[in-house]
Formats: sequence, C-alpha cells, structure tokens
Amino acid sequence: MTNDLARRIRVARGLEPADVVVRGGRIVDVLTQEIRRADVAIVGQWIVGVGEGLGGREEIDVGGRFVCPGFVDAHVHVESSMVAPGRFADAVLPHGTTTIVSDPHEIANVLGVDGVRWMLDASEGLDLSVLVMAPACVPASRLETAGARLVAADLVALAKHPRVLGLAEMMNYPGVLAGDPEELAKLAAFAGLPIDGHVPGVRGPDLQAYVAAGVVSDHECLTADEAREKVALGMTVFLREATNARNLLDVLPAVTPRNARRFAFCTDDRVPGELLDDGSIDALARMAIGAGLDPLTAITMASLNAAEHYGLRDRGAIAPGRRADLVVVEDLHALRPSLVLAGGRVVARDGERVGGGALAPSGLPPTMNVAWRDHLRLAQESDRVRAIGLIADQLITTSSVESLAAAGSGGVAGPDPARDLLRLSVIERHTASGAVGQGFVSGFGLRRGALASSVAHDSHNIVVAAADDGDALVAARAVAEMGGGLVVVAGGEVRAAVALPLAGLLADRPPREVADELAHATRVAAELGCVLTAPFMALSFLALPVIPSLKLTDQGLVDVDAFALTPVFV
Amino acid sequence: MTNDLARRIRVARGLEPADVVVRGGRIVDVLTQEIRRADVAIVGQWIVGVGEGLGGREEIDVGGRFVCPGFVDAHVHVESSMVAPGRFADAVLPHGTTTIVSDPHEIANVLGVDGVRWMLDASEGLDLSVLVMAPACVPASRLETAGARLVAADLVALAKHPRVLGLAEMMNYPGVLAGDPEELAKLAAFAGLPIDGHVPGVRGPDLQAYVAAGVVSDHECLTADEAREKVALGMTVFLREATNARNLLDVLPAVTPRNARRFAFCTDDRVPGELLDDGSIDALARMAIGAGLDPLTAITMASLNAAEHYGLRDRGAIAPGRRADLVVVEDLHALRPSLVLAGGRVVARDGERVGGGALAPSGLPPTMNVAWRDHLRLAQESDRVRAIGLIADQLITTSSVESLAAAGSGGVAGPDPARDLLRLSVIERHTASGAVGQGFVSGFGLRRGALASSVAHDSHNIVVAAADDGDALVAARAVAEMGGGLVVVAGGEVRAAVALPLAGLLADRPPREVADELAHATRVAAELGCVLTAPFMALSFLALPVIPSLKLTDQGLVDVDAFALTPVFV
Repeated sequence: MTNDLARRIRVARGLEPADVVVRGGRIVDVLTQEIRRADVAIVGQWIVGVGEGLGGREEIDVGGRFVCPGFVDAHVHVESSMVAPGRFADAVLPHGTTTIVSDPHEIANVLGVDGVRWMLDASEGLDLSVLVMAPACVPASRLETAGARLVAADLVALAKHPRVLGLAEMMNYPGVLAGDPEELAKLAAFAGLPIDGHVPGVRGPDLQAYVAAGVVSDHECLTADEAREKVALGMTVFLREATNARNLLDVLPAVTPRNARRFAFCTDDRVPGELLDDGSIDALARMAIGAGLDPLTAITMASLNAAEHYGLRDRGAIAPGRRADLVVVEDLHALRPSLVLAGGRVVARDGERVGGGALAPSGLPPTMNVAWRDHLRLAQESDRVRAIGLIADQLITTSSVESLAAAGSGGVAGPDPARDLLRLSVIERHTASGAVGQGFVSGFGLRRGALASSVAHDSHNIVVAAADDGDALVAARAVAEMGGGLVVVAGGEVRAAVALPLAGLLADRPPREVADELAHATRVAAELGCVLTAPFMALSFLALPVIPSLKLTDQGLVDVDAFALTPVFV
Repeated sequence: MTNDLARRIRVARGLEPADVVVRGGRIVDVLTQEIRRADVAIVGQWIVGVGEGLGGREEIDVGGRFVCPGFVDAHVHVESSMVAPGRFADAVLPHGTTTIVSDPHEIANVLGVDGVRWMLDASEGLDLSVLVMAPACVPASRLETAGARLVAADLVALAKHPRVLGLAEMMNYPGVLAGDPEELAKLAAFAGLPIDGHVPGVRGPDLQAYVAAGVVSDHECLTADEAREKVALGMTVFLREATNARNLLDVLPAVTPRNARRFAFCTDDRVPGELLDDGSIDALARMAIGAGLDPLTAITMASLNAAEHYGLRDRGAIAPGRRADLVVVEDLHALRPSLVLAGGRVVARDGERVGGGALAPSGLPPTMNVAWRDHLRLAQESDRVRAIGLIADQLITTSSVESLAAAGSGGVAGPDPARDLLRLSVIERHTASGAVGQGFVSGFGLRRGALASSVAHDSHNIVVAAADDGDALVAARAVAEMGGGLVVVAGGEVRAAVALPLAGLLADRPPREVADELAHATRVAAELGCVLTAPFMALSFLALPVIPSLKLTDQGLVDVDAFALTPVFV
C-alpha cells in the first residue's frame, strides 16, 4: 500500500508519468464552485494531480468538454432494478453514477444477514463503488411474514464490514416516536454514524423528536416547505425521483445558494427500463437544472454533498487523493455523459458500458418455500367487502366498501372484472406456513387472467391480482417454479414472464434484457385489459402495510391507519 | 443509553418538560444561514428541540440576544497554554470555545504514548469537549534527542480511543515528498480518516503530491493565494492566529461566499495570557468580522465547518440531536459571549468561568533526567562564530557569522551582551545523556543574567540564553529543580519563575496565575535589558530544527536549509 502511495507521490511531483491523463477538459470544481481548464493525472484508482503539463502513459483528450466528479446516489435499493449489483453497475455507470449508497432492505427481508452479505460479496471489486447501509426495519411490520428478522446486534455485526457506512432508512418512525426499545437500540448502536431517515410529511415536534434520536437525512419530503424545516433541523435532504415516487420538482424550490450544501440526490427505487433510458443521478440533476437550478450547484449536490454527508473523504470532487471517478459531458445543462471513468478506468463511452457483465456469486438458497393449497378461492361470507383502490402513480391506496355480485358457484366470493374488482392474494413463501391473505383490489382494469409477482414490498411474499381464481393459482405457481419473478397468465397459460431467481427479486442478466421482458409483460397485461403503465410496480406495493390506507399481507387485510388486521367481509 | 434517548424523544414531542430551555434568543442558524427567533430545549447534554412553546424545569431567558453554536478550535496544542487540559478549559470556555481538536504533540515528544494517554485521561469528562489527533511527527527530526518516538503502530493503537479522530499535522512534508516509508506508513494507516497538514508556502506539484498522499487540511497558509490553491485541491484551510504565527488577515481574502464552506479557524498555539485576554476562536472570528467577513459566515466557519471537516455529526449547529453547546452574544460583530453552555450546562457567564478548576490526574513521571556538567562554558576554537538571529514575531531566524571579542579568561568563547550576542545552550533532559548543544543568538537584548526554559519545541530539552555563563548553569538547574518551567536568573539568583512540573510543559494551576507569572518573568527579563515582548516564546522555538534558518538542538547547531549539523566556529 505504501508502495502505491510512493508512486502516486512521485507522479504528482512530475518524476514519473501517470497511468492516465485526461487532457484538455474544463474541470467542474465543486470545491471552489468554479470551472477551470486543467488536466487530470491518474495513478491506479486515484487522482494524483490536477493542473497543467501532466504527462501520462495513456492520454485521453476530452477537447474542451466539461469534466465532473463522479455522481453519488445517496440512497438506492439495487433490488428495484431487478438485477444483481454487477448488472446494476452496467446500467448506471454509463449515466455517470460511480458511487451508490445502497440499502439492501429487500433482500434482507427475504434472506436476512445472509442476503446482505451476498449483496456485499456481489458488489466487491465492481467498477461501481457500492456502499451499503444496514437495513433498519426487517421485517417492515409485525403484520406480515418476512423471511428474516434483523435485530440491533445483527446490524452492529454488519457495520464492521468496510463498505457498510451506517444505518439505513429508519422507516419505523412511529416506533421511534413511541420509544420502542428495539428501534432505540438500533439508533443507539449507530450513534455518530450516518443514520438515514424516512419520514414523509412528518413535521413539528414529532420531526424534532425523530431528529433528536440521531437521524441525519431524509429523502421523503413531499414539499419544499417540509424540506426547509428538515434542513433547519440539521438533516441532509436527498431530492428523490423514483419510478414510484416523484418528489424532485416539488422539493427543489427549497434549494437556495445559501443552503444548497445541505441537499443531495437519490433515486431510491428505479425499474431497469427507467435506469437505462432516463438515467440515474444524471437524470435527477438534469431535471433540476431544467427547472432552473444552477448546473454547478446541481453537480455539487450530485457529488460533493452526498460524499460529505456520508463522510467519504476520498471522492466527491476532482482533486488529488480522491478516486478517479470522472464524468465527461459536452453540455452542463444536457448533462449527457460521453465518457465515464471510475477508479481510473474508462467504464462507459457515449452511453454504452465498456466492460461490465460481472457475474454474481452463487450461494443464494432457493426462497420459494410455499405450502400450496389446491385453490385460491375465497368463501363468501357476506355480499359487502373492503376493497383496496389503486391511485395512479402513488403508493397510497383508498379503502372502500364494495358490493359483490351474487356469490359465484359453490359460495365463492369471486372477482368481478366487469366492475374492475379483482381478487388479490398474498401467499407466504419463506417458511411454507401455508398462510394466504385474501382480498379485493380495484384499479388494474384487468379483464381476464392474472398477474403475479414475488417482488412484493417489503416481505416479498407472492402477490397475485386476478380476474380469474384459476389463473391466480397458475400464476402463483409459475412464479414459484421460476424461483421467483413476475408472470402474466391467461386461460391457464403463462403469457409473459420475468424470471428473478436470486431471492425471488433479482436476475443475473443484462438489465436491458430484464427491462425488455418487463416491458413485454406490461404489454401483455395491457392486452388483457390492464390500464396501468406500471402494473407490476403497483402490484408490488399492495402488500406493504406501512403505507396507507388498506393493504394485504399473508396475514390478511391491514387497515394501515389503525395498524391492525381487518376482515375482508363487512 | 436507550432510556436517555427515550426521554429525549418524549421531551421533543412535548410529553415531558426539558431539563433546560434557553428562551427568547435569536438563533444563528448555520444550517440555513438565517437568524430566527426560537427557544432551545435541552435534555442532559443534548438539544432536543428548537422552536416555540417548549417548557423546561429550568428556563434561561436570553432576552433577544443571539445564540450561536459552540465554537470549535480546529487545531490547537493545549501545551502552549502551559496549563493542564482542565485549566485550559477554564480559559477557553468563557470565550465560547466548547470543542477543541487538539494535537498533544509536545507532551508526546517528552513522554510518548504515555503522555498522549495522560492528556486523554486529563480531558475525560470536562465541560470542554477535547478531541485528539494522534501526533504524527515524534520526534520532529533526527537531529535532536526527544523523550520518545512514535511509530505508525503506536498511532494506530491511539486511534482506537473514542476521542482520537485522526492523524495530526504531518509536519515532515519533505519526508512525505521523498516517499519515506515510515511517514507513508502513518498516512496509509489513517487513510479515510482526517489527516491534518502542515505545509507553509508549499505550492504546485509538491503540494499536489502532499494532498495526493491523503492530507485533508492545512493551517499554515501564508497568503490568500496559497489558500485558494489549497482549497482547490480539496483541503480545508484553517485560518490561524497564534501567539507566534499570525496569518488570519493575510489569508482571509481567500474566503468568498462560494467557497466559505471549506474554511475553519484554529488557534494552534496561544500563551495563557492571550487566551484569557484576547480569546480563543471568538477572537479569530471577531478579527475576521472586523476585517469585513459576514458574521454569519464567520460563525459558520467557527462551528459547523470545523465539525463537518472532522465528521462530528453531533455538534456544529443548533439542532435536535446535537450537543447543547451554545454561545450567547449581544452583538454579532463584537462577539463577546455573555453566556456559554456546554453539554447543556452553564459553564461561563460574562466572561467568567462557572465551575471549573478540574484537577489533572497524577501519574506523570518526572522528566528532568539530566547528566549535569559543572559548567556551560564553551571553549573558543576561532574568533568567528555562526550566530542565530531572532526576527521579531517570527519563528524563522537569520544565520550570520559574527566576530567574537578576544577570548575570555581560560579560552572561553563567552557571551558579548554589549553587542547583543548571547550564549545559547540546549541541555538534553530526557535520557541523561549529557548532550549539550552550544551556540550564539542575537536579538534578545539581554544585558545580564539568563533565561531558561524546559519548553523548547519540539523535543523540549532545556534551552538557556545567557549574558553570563555562570547564570546559564544556575538557570538550567533551577528549571530542572522545579521539574520543569521557565526562569529568569541574574547574579546567580532566580529572579522569576514559572513552574511547569507536568512533563516540564504544564502546570495544574489556574491559567490566570500562570499568565501572571509569565508576565512577571517577562517584566523581569525586560529589566535585565530584554527587548522582546515574548522572550520565552522566542526562546522556545530556537531549538526547533525544522524551521529555517539556523537552530540549536542538544546535538548541536543545525543548518535547517541543509538539514545537517554545522560547526559553531567558522
């Protein structure tokens, strides 16, 4: 290590040539908030010099283009991309994201500490720097069956890994506010380290209490005013633009020249198609710039601010001693990376990945442990049921009481696709307990067939929305037979599928392939009448009992506002 | 711990009264860069709420005065105050400094790791938060005898202490630039942690190399232009105003609204009288404001910037979850603290310490291990000698060749006070080796007697400047008999003394007492003809062979530019 260091010093002093020199660029200097012409000399993974007259064995002339520091995603769930970390890297590196702070919350809900360790192994040595926060809320609630439970001691053990930075989003803010000893033990164990927050819409004394408990960031602001309040309390606010939660433009007015230092960007959850086609942190910065934010400020938020928030002294700016993570762009407003270096190597050019295709390690166990019933029919107990109502592009749902048509054959409370009332089932898949939650959902518009998925936040049981009880069972079994994934079934046959055999969440395949399959499945669902642009995204949040108003878990229908199970039949 | 946390949460939510509420203040919000009216609720050491309508068991009405976050000294040697840490706290808390990042470099040179551990013990549980950097350069050079040697493994062991943050100023920049394996091992061991720099006037490729090696701050800038260069390389620049090195006003023009985030303040070395009467970080902020810096920017540099540089998430701003370190002032320009809280307790009021007087732990061994000679006379070898020339208020010296008068009795090369040519001796005091360095110095103006001190950077041997060879020996022995300290001798008698028996550097007495004794000794020296305002400060740097041009150690006269011993006689 000191030999490498000695060489970096000699190169910086001009006594030896650098490995690589990026020549002729205009450096976006987020430290001084200036743009200046300079070359960048690189040895191994590191910048050793920024200036004039630096020579290298390899020279990359960027001909007057702008050179930005690599972008940092301040909070992201890799699992939402549906691909393993190496494949995720292939998706985001061409967009200039060279560091992510990830929360492996989803795989932790399926496989616990082993799942987190697998994500750490699968991201070891990638061109993308994958930093990890210890998942704070596994399981997400007591009203569902998850594959694992992480207690404070598990999280402390994880924190010893050199790439684990702190405690991930503390979603159980009611627990924190109530003084739940288990949640407080987690916070106390991470005192002084970064603890990410998750408090959408929480304000006033409750917010102060949550911050007083040690939480130092939030990415769930709904309005600029909320962001201002959080910044004044010392939180770093991450502007988020996720596939399923688009808050950036609402929050952006909170950013001013005087307080910009306290903001960063995060993608949180992006499906593979959006990562590939819209982008990663570049897309958020671009959107903010398009809305009027100074590009230098946006790039500072996209790099230095996130790095400094997490105490990452070795990145976030183009300066000696920092990682050679560089993003070359022609235009600071368009912000389209034409060249990306990560750790001193060219990893993408003109939006295409150079290299990549890293395979994930083996070793994940099968996770489809289902005690199957021979049908998913629901016996009718009354003619009025509580139904979940989807709201387009939102995670919250309505809760309404609907009249059923006359009972189906054999007293079955069946779906009523003519009235857009589908049958919803959640099948426990971790412990083969045989638990199945049953309910109704409106808003899909599916006229026939069924959609099923083993991606079902946060416990990731198998969720099925069906216009036909028979297709529901076929779909659920098809998901399980693939080891997990998404399917569209009609007439008893699988019409489209996306296999996600790693923990039932991820594929170790090129992200474009997974994105195309998902797009195909979405089209097939539309052919069956589905009116949603992202039906599997909608499906995957119907089992998350921490977001209002009515949700379904393997334990049954959950009245989220009361945080209690509630009967389907009224 | 979680019980305390639960209580903080309940108070923040308004369910219980706070311990203390600071009511009616105008909060200097360094996070939003705004000033707003709010109360501050405190539980134990912690802020739990900032807002309206907070109730407490004790209420402190500050009647519209400004409430600033506690000041953070980004780099300071407690030893320069000549008092133990608890007494140092008594000096700086009334000035609003509630956190210091200290480098126990001086005591480490005397007592090694044991000295550092003693400083940690002596600062445990004080009202002042004393954070420590592991001393990087002990001994300071190979041309002197220190009391200890710290290698990388020693520093790594120290770093395990919860109050040790990183590696202190890496003064041996020539060693770093030359790739000295021992220095690189220290840097490598602290990779990713704060590593403080020390590179006065170093620019260009050498500076880039030094930063590439992992150093992240500097407090030795001589000009604004140098500071700009360092900031662009990613360093945090600490503006310094020490008793013996006054750079603040020269560097201040580098601070702009766009880059202010990258600057903090440090006192580095201040004698007790200056700490008491001019101040600590408040004095630097006041000076900067007086020179035109926006008070809000100055206060941000004095608090948040230093805290964020060192990764101290629990302080630096007035917000829930942070330490209740508060400084109340009437006027943001005058910046005179009328009330100071540290860790939730009132620790000073109207410039007077409330409480204090913490005694230092025992356990330091005696450090005056001298093999005495029966005289300090120097045999004359020629009539031309190399002499050190003091420059007022600077640490650098001239090097000149002076003619001696005819040899004294017995062929002794004696002092010539009529021409302001004093005899200088440095007597090894750590290992009783009997080593004595001999030379000449001009610039004191002493007409008779001798000054001696066991404070003699960085090895802290006994240094004596004398107009009389006999008084020189009396003075050196008097220092040793006190266990260390400063003396003025004339006519064979001690005329003034400051006893510093802890490592020969510190007293465990009220700082005012030590300051008064030092002032008295300075007056007595003046009565003997001394023309310097701070003769003991000047004396203490004459043995530091890393600052040009000519210095004296126990090994002999050092030509600093050549970094080699050189004969006294030409």
